[in-house]
Amino acid sequence: MSLRDTLRNIVESVDGGLAAMIMAYDGIPVDEVCIEKTEFDMQLLSVEYATVLKEIRHTIQVIKAGDMEEVSITTCQTCVAIRVLNEELFVVLIMKRDGNFGKGRYLLRLKSFELAQALS
Amino acid sequence: MSLRDTLRNIVESVDGGLAAMIMAYDGIPVDEVCIEKTEFDMQLLSVEYATVLKEIRHTIQVIKAGDMEEVSITTCQTCVAIRVLNEELFVVLIMKRDGNFGKGRYLLRLKSFELAQALS
Repeated sequence: MSLRDTLRNIVESVDGGLAAMIMAYDGIPVDEVCIEKTEFDMQLLSVEYATVLKEIRHTIQVIKAGDMEEVSITTCQTCVAIRVLNEELFVVLIMKRDGNFGKGRYLLRLKSFELAQALS
Repeated sequence: MSLRDTLRNIVESVDGGLAAMIMAYDGIPVDEVCIEKTEFDMQLLSVEYATVLKEIRHTIQVIKAGDMEEVSITTCQTCVAIRVLNEELFVVLIMKRDGNFGKGRYLLRLKSFELAQALS
């Protein structure tokens, strides 16, 4: 299954799934799938979330809490689950606020090895 | 129930619960309960997570994703769930990596109104 197919499979399997993307820490997306029009500028979102992830990774190093695995950010509009794939890349799943967060998180974990393999 | 009692109640009700604290965005803890010795310097953790939260709040404003409600950060050692209480304060729950993340998240949501009321 291609990277894009795997991303599409993740988004389509989650109630409220809007988009999924693989991104680098420099904010450049490797691949992305958007199955429903979102209000966000995806490019801006990529850059901003990459910056946040770098900040979180730094914090985790400072407090010596081990390697970062997963981050989720919920606002009154959306729920974003992020999973680290390797030293350079992470996968992001954007869901509606009332989407199935648990399933989204589970699928990211389940598919992260497959995605990391395809990218190595 | 006092603030500390509510925090203690949250930590003790979650399998793998280690500590809970109410913190301001300037990194100063308002109150904290630690039921199990952690490897982390709690003061350092406060300051670092407050910085991260401010960064995330800024990002959410930039991408216009509405108000921040909840953030969770999982590493290979711990799982940290954070819930915004008001413009100035947030509550943090630190759990073991294999702790009951779902219940922790649920309890923070459930108790956030009570905590916010007690702090207003």
